[in-house]
Amino acid sequence: MTSLLIDNLAQYASPVAPAPARGSALREVEVVTGAAIAIVDGRIAACGPRDQVLRDHGDLPVHDAGGCAAIPGLVDCHTHAAFGGDRAGEFDLRSQGAGYEQIHAAGGGIAASVRDTRAAAADGTLGPLLDRHLAWMAAAGTTTAEVKSGYGLDRDTELAMLDAAAAGHPIEVAPTFLGAHAVGPEWDDADDYLTFVIKRVMPQAAVRAEAADVFLERGAFDRDQAERYLRAAAGHGLVLRLHADQFSQAGGVGLAIELGARSVDHLEATGPEGVAALAASDVAAVMLPACVIMLDLPRPPARELADAGAIVALATDFNPGSAFCHSLPLVMSLACMQLGMSPAEALVACTVNAAWVLRRGDRLGRIAAGYDGDVVLLDSDDWRHAAYHLGGPAVAGVIKAGRRL
Amino acid sequence: MTSLLIDNLAQYASPVAPAPARGSALREVEVVTGAAIAIVDGRIAACGPRDQVLRDHGDLPVHDAGGCAAIPGLVDCHTHAAFGGDRAGEFDLRSQGAGYEQIHAAGGGIAASVRDTRAAAADGTLGPLLDRHLAWMAAAGTTTAEVKSGYGLDRDTELAMLDAAAAGHPIEVAPTFLGAHAVGPEWDDADDYLTFVIKRVMPQAAVRAEAADVFLERGAFDRDQAERYLRAAAGHGLVLRLHADQFSQAGGVGLAIELGARSVDHLEATGPEGVAALAASDVAAVMLPACVIMLDLPRPPARELADAGAIVALATDFNPGSAFCHSLPLVMSLACMQLGMSPAEALVACTVNAAWVLRRGDRLGRIAAGYDGDVVLLDSDDWRHAAYHLGGPAVAGVIKAGRRL
Repeated sequence: MTSLLIDNLAQYASPVAPAPARGSALREVEVVTGAAIAIVDGRIAACGPRDQVLRDHGDLPVHDAGGCAAIPGLVDCHTHAAFGGDRAGEFDLRSQGAGYEQIHAAGGGIAASVRDTRAAAADGTLGPLLDRHLAWMAAAGTTTAEVKSGYGLDRDTELAMLDAAAAGHPIEVAPTFLGAHAVGPEWDDADDYLTFVIKRVMPQAAVRAEAADVFLERGAFDRDQAERYLRAAAGHGLVLRLHADQFSQAGGVGLAIELGARSVDHLEATGPEGVAALAASDVAAVMLPACVIMLDLPRPPARELADAGAIVALATDFNPGSAFCHSLPLVMSLACMQLGMSPAEALVACTVNAAWVLRRGDRLGRIAAGYDGDVVLLDSDDWRHAAYHLGGPAVAGVIKAGRRL
Repeated sequence: MTSLLIDNLAQYASPVAPAPARGSALREVEVVTGAAIAIVDGRIAACGPRDQVLRDHGDLPVHDAGGCAAIPGLVDCHTHAAFGGDRAGEFDLRSQGAGYEQIHAAGGGIAASVRDTRAAAADGTLGPLLDRHLAWMAAAGTTTAEVKSGYGLDRDTELAMLDAAAAGHPIEVAPTFLGAHAVGPEWDDADDYLTFVIKRVMPQAAVRAEAADVFLERGAFDRDQAERYLRAAAGHGLVLRLHADQFSQAGGVGLAIELGARSVDHLEATGPEGVAALAASDVAAVMLPACVIMLDLPRPPARELADAGAIVALATDFNPGSAFCHSLPLVMSLACMQLGMSPAEALVACTVNAAWVLRRGDRLGRIAAGYDGDVVLLDSDDWRHAAYHLGGPAVAGVIKAGRRL
């Protein structure tokens, strides 16, 4: 916990509404010019026009922002950042015409990452690999990230992934148990595998994780299987999340609402009924534009969800197969260029709403008194460069709880 | 001119065929593992398996690449990197539904950059702004870039842009005279403006530039006007290039072939006849996927051009309006994800073929003896991460003519 005065900001931009921001609040970003931010013991004590802030906090150690713009520390609410190996070879093949589902069916895809992640967990390199990925994310402005398990699909590796996520990191990590990412390679039957996961892995996973997630999709788990897994997770007190509607509508939105899940993620295949149902619910709609680009998927109905009043969030989906992308600023760019969102909506979706998905909306995602001192300094005097500068370098500095990373 | 031994490369990847690579040569990338590259007086003296290279060049000063992969220095053959101001506000508006042509017609678009660039040229900040942009490009692996004029549209600013481009820079710059980017704001008539440009600006621009370029498009210049401008430029000994087929097919491909232009750039609207004509010609097809993403344009027929045997190149189109993107690795990612190109094709298109567009194909774009010592070290042991890692950080180091940037 550190104290710091961030002085000489050309401006800072912050979501106005507390979490979750929906409807008109999704577009509401306050821009304060000639600003300063006072962080005391890791929390924002004051922020606003610099004269006002300096009156009470002029004695803090100063970080001179040199006339740049600032935004809240970014929150990445959907990542698979703990993995071994990469899938550059698969990327190469896919660029020459092989389909994602084809590769998946042929034993590539998730199966390849399961092999590599098990090997990394066994030889002690999984933690350093996760640290490397988190360092990339932090350099791009992410100060809090979710990290899922799901490349183990056996007891030891799933727990090792969660332990790696829960270990101390320069940024804050929220671990999610994704034991139902795919059927473990040792299992012929999805139901048998789920029985194993629920009985043999989940009790210990629940001690380490905050949430549970399932991949509801043809080729992975169906609606009934997802329900069984999630009800068991709820019994352990875990927050519920779903990967759904990525390639097909298989009931994930309805199940998420029925079970009171915190979010349903992907939504590339979601139609008007799903949009209306989500808008009328308290389930967040998490969209993943890097995956959309990398797999060349149909675009999720971001504009429709925002206009209908859904709780909209954005995330990287950072993973070695379908989104080898750690950068939330790039996700913001893609959301504006491909999904019809404005820079303000993209900012809210990557900050306060993403924090809400991770149940940290009361203290993360805004530059406001009482919130954590998580601030991203941009390489521009206009905060919109975070989305406008396609491919960065948008980020000039990152501060987590008052400490420079 | 510096001498250097780049040792301990996990691998390097280089286009096999000399420029221009077309047909099957567009896909041919040689990967040498356990490699080293010896650069003597700025040129590659030897490259290959490290034992062979060290035998003759073991006495050179060593840069230990630490097991990373390398590719040739990237060549960005289409940029508007000399500009004042930005257009983040326009980006914001467009993300809320305003069209590019709408913004252009309303006096935004190029007109805004003309105002800001004239101001920067007048107050002496244009050079530092270009340096800033070139530094971003270099950090992303670009060792040679084209820089166009075209935001002056008056005599003094057009020449100031070319002077800024021709000044000494850490990377190599090829200046292009784009006096026919748009009709200057002081002129009511496009033909009168062209007469001014050809008579009053081009003679001095031709001393500073290597090439001339024109924007052939509805709202800019038509085919006859483009021909008049380009024939005048040819009379001054300038290489000819065209912006064409971005929004509509207005005869640019045919004109480029008729005049023996070096390249025709954009091609988002090019149909099968244009593809066939380009494939049968020696005019390079330069595609700009960052612009495609940022304006959400139809995709250019990259796969068709490659398969038909055209000389295919890729570039950033770095500019403040339609492609605020300096990064060729990101362009390579987008080419693989959105345009159906493979990592190998994207590499050839950003190296040896882009060098050919800039008439430097005999010495840039390959890791081969006799070529300039321009090498990009990647943050991976697999060169394909240059395209696979969406949003980087793919680049670990950049060497220009044997000197670390």
